[in-house]
Amino acid sequence: MKVSAVITLKKDVLDPQGKIIQQALDGMGFKDINEIRQGKYFEIDVKENDPKKAHKIVEDMCKKLLANLVIEDYKIIGIN
Amino acid sequence: MKVSAVITLKKDVLDPQGKIIQQALDGMGFKDINEIRQGKYFEIDVKENDPKKAHKIVEDMCKKLLANLVIEDYKIIGIN
Repeated sequence: MKVSAVITLKKDVLDPQGKIIQQALDGMGFKDINEIRQGKYFEIDVKENDPKKAHKIVEDMCKKLLANLVIEDYKIIGIN
Repeated sequence: MKVSAVITLKKDVLDPQGKIIQQALDGMGFKDINEIRQGKYFEIDVKENDPKKAHKIVEDMCKKLLANLVIEDYKIIGIN
């Protein structure tokens, strides 16, 4: 199954990269932006065919390697 | 509105970063992975309140700055 996960900085953590992108877009004429935050996206193709188990496996991966839980949140956004 | 967009490498483009993450996870005991591909995730908060227009604005941003359309695809995955 292909599981999609997203890792984002926690709400209270500054995102300088997002800020820079916002400034760049502003300079290109996109003036009406409140905020941009950048994160990481993973598409993980696991051999497991049970959606619940696949979800669990990817959640484990996020906790153990992909996300730094001190400053980041993970979310599994799709399984198929 | 908050629009979420994902930028991924096109299918035929090698993703060495994803490969390395896969190897790292393999070394940690996650043996049953077919493939991992990494991408970028953007959460863009625009002042526009019409979902269709917000979608259009973010699509424009992806085309003009966020994605390199030669090697990357973009997808808008959520609006709220």
